[in-house]
Amino acid sequence: MAQPDVLISECGPRDGLQIIREVMPTKDKLAWIGAMHAAGVSEIEVCSFVPPKLMPQMADAAEVVAGSLKLQGLTVLALVPNLRGAEAAIAAGAHKLTIPVSATEEHSLANVRRTRADMVEEVGHIVRMRNERAPHVPVEANVSVAFGCTIAGAVDEDEVIRLAVTLARAGADFTGLSDTTGMGNPAQTRRLFTRLIAEIGERCGAAHMHNTRGLGLANNLAAYEAGVRAFDSSLAGLGGCPHAPGASGNVATEDLVFMFEAMGVDTGIDVARLVAARDVLAAALPEVPLYGMLAPAGLPLGYAPARLQRG
Amino acid sequence: MAQPDVLISECGPRDGLQIIREVMPTKDKLAWIGAMHAAGVSEIEVCSFVPPKLMPQMADAAEVVAGSLKLQGLTVLALVPNLRGAEAAIAAGAHKLTIPVSATEEHSLANVRRTRADMVEEVGHIVRMRNERAPHVPVEANVSVAFGCTIAGAVDEDEVIRLAVTLARAGADFTGLSDTTGMGNPAQTRRLFTRLIAEIGERCGAAHMHNTRGLGLANNLAAYEAGVRAFDSSLAGLGGCPHAPGASGNVATEDLVFMFEAMGVDTGIDVARLVAARDVLAAALPEVPLYGMLAPAGLPLGYAPARLQRG
Repeated sequence: MAQPDVLISECGPRDGLQIIREVMPTKDKLAWIGAMHAAGVSEIEVCSFVPPKLMPQMADAAEVVAGSLKLQGLTVLALVPNLRGAEAAIAAGAHKLTIPVSATEEHSLANVRRTRADMVEEVGHIVRMRNERAPHVPVEANVSVAFGCTIAGAVDEDEVIRLAVTLARAGADFTGLSDTTGMGNPAQTRRLFTRLIAEIGERCGAAHMHNTRGLGLANNLAAYEAGVRAFDSSLAGLGGCPHAPGASGNVATEDLVFMFEAMGVDTGIDVARLVAARDVLAAALPEVPLYGMLAPAGLPLGYAPARLQRG
Repeated sequence: MAQPDVLISECGPRDGLQIIREVMPTKDKLAWIGAMHAAGVSEIEVCSFVPPKLMPQMADAAEVVAGSLKLQGLTVLALVPNLRGAEAAIAAGAHKLTIPVSATEEHSLANVRRTRADMVEEVGHIVRMRNERAPHVPVEANVSVAFGCTIAGAVDEDEVIRLAVTLARAGADFTGLSDTTGMGNPAQTRRLFTRLIAEIGERCGAAHMHNTRGLGLANNLAAYEAGVRAFDSSLAGLGGCPHAPGASGNVATEDLVFMFEAMGVDTGIDVARLVAARDVLAAALPEVPLYGMLAPAGLPLGYAPARLQRG
């Protein structure tokens, strides 16, 4: 089998769960992760290594990593906010780490009580620790609120690119950009990723575009056209706000996979099996609304996935 | 004031209402049309001229046209399926006509019980009648199910382009393409509109992209990048199926306008006033769900419309 054209990195078990009040039992998390892996998802952000007091949903992070390591061919990705989290993730056996660094000083201070400069330094510490203990584990840094900040408003594009390049120089193997707040638009997405790729080339990391204002897929399309080949999304758009249905949250992975496959861009994922994985999620979180447009509409008559289009 | 960069043609009063069981009173239709016009919408498809027995929602078509003609600067657009409808629309004073012609024989027969060849001939009759009675009224033909057909499945792209060119030769001033069934994808959208513009240039009409599977805005973006400058959409995505919320229907005008304005593409529309026009619609149709992601999320902090971005 040829390599897929794009990497779809599922972030629901981390980004989706972290804003939901319910604590999902470990076995339910692993059933959900397993169902997505069975559909062909090759990278899943399974947890974050953060203090359990701050985020009880992630208290079983090491167990979730251990369970996910049994799934053949899966890249087990963990979010780590600092060196301590990175040490724990590597000790647990995570295959890849991702570190969020805010584009604005305001968001950085509010979110992790540290300046951006401190966070860049922390990325350097994490990379050095990784070099010693687990040199095969890639480290991705991701610039959050890169497309707009709910505290600072519009974000200067030069500043975003400067920070991303600084993170790459600090040793991050990949550096991506996140529209954490769903404030981005396709023109901006194209500009920022075009510049990022001009600066760091194949070390450009994932586009993590939220769908808060409905532009998630259009922004992913613009990122793809700019040359991005890795995309974060969440099954059923988990991560939406239950108090404002439809108003927030991640791009639904199944919709994103459908868009790419229909376009002839191979994701390596069987979208029908991915849609079926929603049932596993719904069984575990019966009160949480599931988003995504493909699932209720179904695949179109005559639909052919990318690999079949190539004959 | 400079001309806007794109034409947003609101189709809710026609495409949205026609699939809803309720018959909206004429005065409510006009209040809704008025609210959208006040937000800067410059073209509205206010009705279709079809037999009232087939579509009681449109029985007041002439009255709605008459009321809409009072709105300064508004292009009053009417859908007409045949010569008889076109005569009635011109008698009522409509400024512009649009005629749907199916891309597939199967859909044409199921929808209007006529072959595509018959429909091309009908477009010729309508254009000749228009030349005599109202030479200032542009006629647009729009190829429906151009991106996929719920009866025939995948639609041959060569056939779509051939039909569109034939319609232009039959005298249609503009010829557009409709993703009636929400089966299109951005790569296909770009290919088809690129070819259509290569064939008929500035006589390329509107992209009418549905959001059935969530790709509506991405498809509109692809159409824009291919050179399309006219787009159909419906306030609050009216035209969704009440039995499968989120599963069908038009692109929400307010989301589309937000996308373009955020990108720096001037629509001539004040998106905040457009969002407020949803209240007028909701008051008239309290049972019908309103779609669209911008309205619940609100405009992002630091948002600047296209005209302000230019300083």
